[in-house]
Amino acid sequence: MKVLVLGAGQLARMMALASKPLNIDVRAYDVGSAQVVDPLSVSVTFGDLVTGIEFADAITAEFEHISHDVLACCEASGKLFPSSQAIKTGGDRRLEKNLLAQASVNNATHKVVANKAEFDDALATLTLPLILKSALAGYDGKGQWRLKDLAQAETIWQDVDTFIKEDTSDQQQAVVVEQMVPFDREVSLVGVRDKNGETHAYPLTENHHTNGVLSVSLATNEHQALQQQAAEAFDKIAAGLKYVGVLAIEFFQVGDSLLVNEIAPRVHNSGHWTQQGADTCQFENHMRAVCQLPLGSTNLVRPTAMINVLGTDTVPDSILAVPSVTMHWYGKSKRPGRKMGHINVSGFDRSELLARLKAVAVLLSEEDFPEVLDYVNQLT
Amino acid sequence: MKVLVLGAGQLARMMALASKPLNIDVRAYDVGSAQVVDPLSVSVTFGDLVTGIEFADAITAEFEHISHDVLACCEASGKLFPSSQAIKTGGDRRLEKNLLAQASVNNATHKVVANKAEFDDALATLTLPLILKSALAGYDGKGQWRLKDLAQAETIWQDVDTFIKEDTSDQQQAVVVEQMVPFDREVSLVGVRDKNGETHAYPLTENHHTNGVLSVSLATNEHQALQQQAAEAFDKIAAGLKYVGVLAIEFFQVGDSLLVNEIAPRVHNSGHWTQQGADTCQFENHMRAVCQLPLGSTNLVRPTAMINVLGTDTVPDSILAVPSVTMHWYGKSKRPGRKMGHINVSGFDRSELLARLKAVAVLLSEEDFPEVLDYVNQLT
Repeated sequence: MKVLVLGAGQLARMMALASKPLNIDVRAYDVGSAQVVDPLSVSVTFGDLVTGIEFADAITAEFEHISHDVLACCEASGKLFPSSQAIKTGGDRRLEKNLLAQASVNNATHKVVANKAEFDDALATLTLPLILKSALAGYDGKGQWRLKDLAQAETIWQDVDTFIKEDTSDQQQAVVVEQMVPFDREVSLVGVRDKNGETHAYPLTENHHTNGVLSVSLATNEHQALQQQAAEAFDKIAAGLKYVGVLAIEFFQVGDSLLVNEIAPRVHNSGHWTQQGADTCQFENHMRAVCQLPLGSTNLVRPTAMINVLGTDTVPDSILAVPSVTMHWYGKSKRPGRKMGHINVSGFDRSELLARLKAVAVLLSEEDFPEVLDYVNQLT
Repeated sequence: MKVLVLGAGQLARMMALASKPLNIDVRAYDVGSAQVVDPLSVSVTFGDLVTGIEFADAITAEFEHISHDVLACCEASGKLFPSSQAIKTGGDRRLEKNLLAQASVNNATHKVVANKAEFDDALATLTLPLILKSALAGYDGKGQWRLKDLAQAETIWQDVDTFIKEDTSDQQQAVVVEQMVPFDREVSLVGVRDKNGETHAYPLTENHHTNGVLSVSLATNEHQALQQQAAEAFDKIAAGLKYVGVLAIEFFQVGDSLLVNEIAPRVHNSGHWTQQGADTCQFENHMRAVCQLPLGSTNLVRPTAMINVLGTDTVPDSILAVPSVTMHWYGKSKRPGRKMGHINVSGFDRSELLARLKAVAVLLSEEDFPEVLDYVNQLT
């Protein structure tokens, strides 16, 4: 089998690494250079998008912010999984909110705002504090504003208005204004669905964000009550999109309830722990779904955590001496805040995992891994 | 870090796959074409051996039957791990037998035979039945003869004599004549040693051979008494070779005792289960040792078995629906008997593993996987 991945970043790379043992040949379309490349060696090029579409038995994506023209070309070949509709939904909070409403899945109360009148209406209708999120192309904390007091409204609107007008994408930019959810925890569910509608969900993952970016994920199989709630939301959303492949759902946990924060129609950073912690990792399961192979079990093999490596290309070698530590570098050049790699840590049970996680965290610098040690130290 | 692997087969490929996440760049020297290639894409070439040696921070090997000239070139660079002496010892049963004697490690009684007089002396000294093994370049059942009755002696000697005289290698061919060991089981130990002499051994693996070639390996952590015996032999042998990297030792188990059958100065087929069953797989640990990174834990994560795929490039997709089944293809073209890939299967405990192993074995054809179902079915 031959697969073309739209996007040539770390997710395409890890899909390619998981695919080699399955004899699935993966190439990646770099939307920046408009070239098809080897995701394991991005300086090796294979031609343009048309060549890539011809090469492939199946086409998939590593991110959702892809031009609709590119998606249309791929969909016309009949090889695109998930569908362009699913990918677009993940890339546009308006479509996402419509989907959640249609699937009757709990999420934060919101209004779509594209002009001052809609903004004023949102302020009049919703209860403060609010969070404003760009409808298109905003993730990892970019294109977001928090409005806690009406005194901030005018300043924030100026910012948002400029942001909307500056957008040059082929869709119309807007912001989704949500009531801020007073959540206890952020958790996510990664799952996979095949062409016949069979689904498997990985154990719920607890996520810690630092400055709006995921810093630590923890999967320990200890949330059976929530697991079922999340898996039901997954099934509804995935069925609504006739989804094929791995799909991630981020939730806010409020008491014993889950509210969907956002969905990602792809393998997800909060599922990287599955490489060491699950029967079949998310990258392999995505490829199995896209290539119409039987899905693999998503069961937890052992409690596993992931620490993101952001903006640095070095970590102390000494972390490798902690049992079960696996380093995953993405082979990228360093830039501030850039996702450079991740560290997976496992343990026989939660207690062993936390001991090892703490042993790793104390070796990491506060400068390169802000809040990680504090977060890990308060886990019990 | 950059590593050159001597040999460009599946072991180099799996070393390269394990190295990508560590940002270790691996190239492989194909001794057939005398070209340095990308082990993940062997049609991509990078030049000759000298270029490869210059490229590398460290050099290692995926097999032991390498011309001594090549080993000498690599060793002169100061980058070769393990040493040429260790690699040569694995490639010559005479050196291996000397090493075992020096390290005081139990092994089968033997005589080295290069001519008729030595053959007659062996027959007079040793107790039948005997097994004759080529001193150089024989593994997976090639270059072996079984002598059960003196009536066979003349015919076998004609064969052996021709074999010795036809050898064109730069060392002198011979056979090692061993007393056949009435063993209960064949087991192996894979371990790793770093430059400072620190060692870690994986759990002992039970091996089943079909027609002289490994067909199934099983690692279940249930042999603690033998584990210590094997680990002690490993430590003695590895220390004797000042070994750096992964080293495998095959044993015959006779009652509660282990006798060394042979050593392999490299990652080993009977250690492929570590990809899914151990904290750190043998490929990563070999690279860690060779690159002077801290060694990873060799602890069992969960009982795991491996089934070799020999001479066929297809297995039923349905095996992927059995939980925890991971397919490892080597991307090679089909030839009778060729090692094409392997299947790893894991379980929470031995009982779950055996149930899954049986579920896989019944899906495999007897033609492509001779004896596998019978072997698996008698496991308890």
